[in-house]
Amino acid sequence: MNVHDLPTPALVVDRRALENNLGAMAAALPGPRLRPHVKAHKTTALARLQAAAGHHNFTCATPREVEGMARAGLGDDLLLANEVVDDDRLARLAALDARVTVAVDSDATIDAAARNGISEVLIDVNVGLPRCGCDPGDAGRLADAARARGLGVRGVMGYEGHVVGVEDRAARVEQTAVAMELLTKAHADTGGDLVSAGGTGTYDINTWANEIQAGSYVLMDGAYDKLALPFRPGLSISATVVSVSPGWVVADCGLKALGMDHGNPTVSGGTVWFCSDEHLTFSPDGGDGSMRVGDRVTVWPAHIDPTIAYHERMQVVDGDEVVETWEVDLRGW
Amino acid sequence: MNVHDLPTPALVVDRRALENNLGAMAAALPGPRLRPHVKAHKTTALARLQAAAGHHNFTCATPREVEGMARAGLGDDLLLANEVVDDDRLARLAALDARVTVAVDSDATIDAAARNGISEVLIDVNVGLPRCGCDPGDAGRLADAARARGLGVRGVMGYEGHVVGVEDRAARVEQTAVAMELLTKAHADTGGDLVSAGGTGTYDINTWANEIQAGSYVLMDGAYDKLALPFRPGLSISATVVSVSPGWVVADCGLKALGMDHGNPTVSGGTVWFCSDEHLTFSPDGGDGSMRVGDRVTVWPAHIDPTIAYHERMQVVDGDEVVETWEVDLRGW
Repeated sequence: MNVHDLPTPALVVDRRALENNLGAMAAALPGPRLRPHVKAHKTTALARLQAAAGHHNFTCATPREVEGMARAGLGDDLLLANEVVDDDRLARLAALDARVTVAVDSDATIDAAARNGISEVLIDVNVGLPRCGCDPGDAGRLADAARARGLGVRGVMGYEGHVVGVEDRAARVEQTAVAMELLTKAHADTGGDLVSAGGTGTYDINTWANEIQAGSYVLMDGAYDKLALPFRPGLSISATVVSVSPGWVVADCGLKALGMDHGNPTVSGGTVWFCSDEHLTFSPDGGDGSMRVGDRVTVWPAHIDPTIAYHERMQVVDGDEVVETWEVDLRGW
Repeated sequence: MNVHDLPTPALVVDRRALENNLGAMAAALPGPRLRPHVKAHKTTALARLQAAAGHHNFTCATPREVEGMARAGLGDDLLLANEVVDDDRLARLAALDARVTVAVDSDATIDAAARNGISEVLIDVNVGLPRCGCDPGDAGRLADAARARGLGVRGVMGYEGHVVGVEDRAARVEQTAVAMELLTKAHADTGGDLVSAGGTGTYDINTWANEIQAGSYVLMDGAYDKLALPFRPGLSISATVVSVSPGWVVADCGLKALGMDHGNPTVSGGTVWFCSDEHLTFSPDGGDGSMRVGDRVTVWPAHIDPTIAYHERMQVVDGDEVVETWEVDLRGW
């Protein structure tokens, strides 16, 4: 099938960009040096390619991502890099035929893990991003508390999310060092083999961590465009022009097909005016008469993770040919 | 079940607010004076309540909404208030056991409707919002063209989307009049029974239209809060505090649970700092120590339509008791 015959809006993956990104990352961080984050794509078919590239340990953000990965046979070593206190969900994770490690950052999360049969945890340390993670000085105490409850403590994680997008590389290096100094000190107090951190923006900078949790690299995000990384944009939306007026045209790709927290998407061959629930209004670069009803346009979302979460499937294309269809099977919680 | 026992993030509908909104609208615009827009909620169970309140004609934004409504037995009179040129989808709509009318605004959309067996159309007229809709002066010609292709022309629609959110009521009235003058003139050229327009912000102002396409009224949107309408906010997200730090706490309601085009949500009892993919970071009004891991918080999305489109189901609550669970069964395209 040709990409222009897909019903729209269609989430489209460029196979060549994807293969470039998989190859570049596997060369830089082979095997367990990378723990790919599946939250970026929520698609076990894509995770399978990451495993084929040598990465068998995965990072997840939700219980459902962990469950789906385990069911897909990708459960060698799954890290839920997020705090969860839901008994039912934790008990389900503990029952999976998979190695499951969950992040904890408090006595309450350690208690939830222990009482629901989880066997291994990672101490989540705040390294500067105001989100989850314990105070670095509290990591040792929490590791002791976890071990006292019978939990295996595999080490620490600490996501430098406030650094990964810093545009100037020298500043990114400096701020990563500051963040990882905190994580390294915490690790000295916790023990365990893993020092898990990093993202696409620091994948080749963060040498303190022994595994990097990058996810965006594989399909890439507009937000990372400015960092001169060796990864290429691989995700777009194919849309159809449904209305043409003097001065603007409208395509069928709106707010329910696009993560909007980073702002408007861009559109090839046009300038975006605004998005509505099911519409993208833009002016075509070629002026009036250059686009007709039925034309296809390519829309580039500003943030891929929440964009993908709206879609049921991805279409993989090689040039204009659709070569595979993947279910986005890890959506929800 | 208690709302606090739901797995989170959970989309929660307040039954009392919902019933207030259904009742207030049915009193103001009884029966066919309202053609509720299902794009707001994408849930046939909720549409069934709108039908029970007397509104048997519905507005849809996507082919899948039309198909789902027809399959749910709510196909008395379905308007697809959007332009579609996809042959497969139009042919499926034509084959439904339902009365289906589609919007057209060009020769190309008329041709698509005619060649795929659609029997009735509405001429979509641009009344000032730069989106779909023909030039008002072209409406008569398009109606003639549609009739020449054997299509029934039921009248006109023209959405004054640039007016519905205008805060000052007098200005809203004035601008609605300007927009509806265009629609009325177009209607004189097209004929047909229907003059379909309006939204929640103009439901009691737009007396030119003989049916109003409001959707947001039923669960209400933050964006409409300032208009002093008789509808109450009825949709929130129940989230769990998963991490507590000095200065802030984190709940499990992030970018993949929230439509973000209108900006950050608000949270009861706190001030939002930022959202990440699966997290909401906020400072609790009660200060440090006032919230603990496991506490439930209520998050109010800034825009409900794209929020709902992320969720598989809605939980209907009466006070803290969950009284029903509805599948959000009209998602996708």
